[in-house]
Amino acid sequence: MKIETPYLLFLGDAPDELAVKTARGVLQWRPERCLAQHRLPGCRVDLGLPEWSAAEAAARGARTLVIGVANAGGVLPDRWHPALQGALTAGLDIASGMHTHLASVPALAQAARRHRRQLHELREVGQPLRTGTGARRSGRRVLTVGTDCSVGKKYTALAIEGELCSRGVAVDFRATGQTGILIAGEGIAIDAVVSDFISGAAEALSPAAAPDHWDVVEGQGSLFHPSFAGVSLGLLHGTQPDAFVVCHVPTRTRMRGVEQPLPSVADCIEATLAAGRLTNPEIRCVGAALDTSRDRDPARALAELAAQIGLPVVDPLVTGVGPLVDRMLALS
Amino acid sequence: MKIETPYLLFLGDAPDELAVKTARGVLQWRPERCLAQHRLPGCRVDLGLPEWSAAEAAARGARTLVIGVANAGGVLPDRWHPALQGALTAGLDIASGMHTHLASVPALAQAARRHRRQLHELREVGQPLRTGTGARRSGRRVLTVGTDCSVGKKYTALAIEGELCSRGVAVDFRATGQTGILIAGEGIAIDAVVSDFISGAAEALSPAAAPDHWDVVEGQGSLFHPSFAGVSLGLLHGTQPDAFVVCHVPTRTRMRGVEQPLPSVADCIEATLAAGRLTNPEIRCVGAALDTSRDRDPARALAELAAQIGLPVVDPLVTGVGPLVDRMLALS
Repeated sequence: MKIETPYLLFLGDAPDELAVKTARGVLQWRPERCLAQHRLPGCRVDLGLPEWSAAEAAARGARTLVIGVANAGGVLPDRWHPALQGALTAGLDIASGMHTHLASVPALAQAARRHRRQLHELREVGQPLRTGTGARRSGRRVLTVGTDCSVGKKYTALAIEGELCSRGVAVDFRATGQTGILIAGEGIAIDAVVSDFISGAAEALSPAAAPDHWDVVEGQGSLFHPSFAGVSLGLLHGTQPDAFVVCHVPTRTRMRGVEQPLPSVADCIEATLAAGRLTNPEIRCVGAALDTSRDRDPARALAELAAQIGLPVVDPLVTGVGPLVDRMLALS
Repeated sequence: MKIETPYLLFLGDAPDELAVKTARGVLQWRPERCLAQHRLPGCRVDLGLPEWSAAEAAARGARTLVIGVANAGGVLPDRWHPALQGALTAGLDIASGMHTHLASVPALAQAARRHRRQLHELREVGQPLRTGTGARRSGRRVLTVGTDCSVGKKYTALAIEGELCSRGVAVDFRATGQTGILIAGEGIAIDAVVSDFISGAAEALSPAAAPDHWDVVEGQGSLFHPSFAGVSLGLLHGTQPDAFVVCHVPTRTRMRGVEQPLPSVADCIEATLAAGRLTNPEIRCVGAALDTSRDRDPARALAELAAQIGLPVVDPLVTGVGPLVDRMLALS
C-alpha cells in the first residue's frame, strides 16, 4: 500500500483530543507531509494547521485526504460523506482506517471511479502474501517489542529512524499499524493479515537490502499479551531482527484489557531472545525505551532499569534514543 | 456448512505423500465416506482407491469432490481448473481448503451457478470472531503440539478422542484445519483467521464446558517453525490447555520447507510450558506421540524418548494412546 503525500488531515466533528490520535501522530512525525486540516461543524479539536477546503488543498498540492479521526466502532458516519465525496471530486485520494470501507459507500465508490482516485483502506493488506520462509536476508533490522500493547513501540521506532537518519545511516521505518502506515506512506497492517501469512508479511515488509541499511520495524502487541502474542511472534520471526528494544510504561500496573500480569522488562528480553534466535541466532537486545510521562522521578526510573538489565534505557521523547542507536551500530 | 458425502478425493498432480495429507486423513478416519480418487497426469501418489472420473463418481453416488492435496500458500493452480469445472458439470459439489477461493475463479463460479452446485471454502471461518481475552473457562482441554508441521498432531488428537470416547468420557474433537473439518463436520481453519483473532478463534472453538468434559484440540504448526509459529502460539494461548502432547517424527532430519533445525521433543516441552503458562498456569505435558513408521526399531525409539523425557511415549497408530489418556485423567 503506497499512499500519495502530502496530506489534508480530516478531523470530522471530533469531540476531543483522543479522537484525533491518528492525525496527531502523523503530524508529530511527518509535519512536512501535513499541509492543512479540514474540520466539520462541531469539531472541538484544532491541530493548529491552516484550515483548507478540499479544493484549496488540492490546488496547493495535497494528494490525499487522511481520515485522522476515530470513533467507537470505526463506523463512517453519513454526515461525513459529502465532505469525502467533495475531496474525491477535488482530485484527492482518501486514506481511511475505519472498519466501514470507503468503497462500501456507493457515492464514494462511484466518485472515486469517476475521478480516478484511490480509496486506501488501511485495514486491508492490499498485496498478495506468501508464507514466511525463515531464510536469512541481507541488511540490518531493529524491532521494537513491548511488555504490553500501547507502550510506545511506534514512537520508539520513529525516534530510532530519526536518529539513524541524522547520523547519515541509510534507514527505512517499516509500518505495521494504521497510523504508522500513514506516517510512512506505506506498510502492512499486520493484525489484518491472515494468520498463515504473519511472518511472511513481515518478511515482505522488510525485504533484503544493502548490508549497512537499517529497517526500523514497528512492533505490535506483546509476547505476553494473551490476545495478540501470536501476531507479535510472527512479526518477530519474519523480521529476524539483529537488534530489538523493549518498550515499557513503568507506571502501568496491569496489562491492558486482560487479567494476565505485566511481565518485567527482563522477562521480555529473555523471551524475545529465546524466540528470536529461531530466525536470527545473532539477535541482541540493545536496551529499553520507557514512557516516563507519568513518573514522579523519570531519571530514577531510567537509572534503576538500566542497572537491572545492564543496558541503555531511554525515554525517546525526553532523552532521545542515542544510546540505543550507539549499541545498534556497534553490533558486529 | 453441511458437506454432502460420499467423497471423490482429488489428488491433482501431488508430488509426494505429504502433499496429500488431507486426502489421506479423511480416508484414514472416515473410510466409509471415500469412494474413489481422481488424479491428474504427474501425480505421484496413489491412495489405493478406485480411479474414477468425476462423471463416473457422480454416477456411482459421489456427492462432493474434495480437494485432498495442499501446497505452500494454498494457491489453486490454473492446471486444476478444467478438472474442477468438469466435476461441477458432472453434478458434484467441491470442498476446498485452499487459500484461493473456488468462487474467485470465474469459470468455477459460473459452472457452480449453472449446475447449482455448492463451492465449500473450508477456510472460511463462518462466524464472527473476537480478540482473545485470556480469561479461564470451565472444562478440560488437551492440545497436540509439534516439533514441526506434519508430525501427526491431528492423528494423535483423533486417537485421543477415540480413547476418551471408549472410556465413556464426554469429549469433543476440535478441528483447526481443513482435513479435521472434513472429518469432524465443523471447526475453524485457524490459519485462515485474521491474525488479530487467532487466540480469540481458539477460545471460540473450545468454549466453556462441564468440568469433566474434554476438548481435544488439533494443533497446528510448531512454535519452532518460522512460517507458522505465530499461529501455534495464538492457538496455545486461546486453548489454555490443561494437558498437551508433543508430536514428533524421529526419523525426520530437517524441518519441512525451511532451513531451521528441528527442535528436540524436550525443547518443545519446555517452550510449550513456558508459553502456555500465560493462560493456564497448570499446563502439563502428558507425553509424546511419535510417528515411527519409518523407524527400523520403533520400540526402541519409543523407549529411548520415554527415558529422556520421563513421560509416556506412544505411536498412536501402533500402540494406541492409552498411557497419554491415563495421565490426562490423573491430572488434579
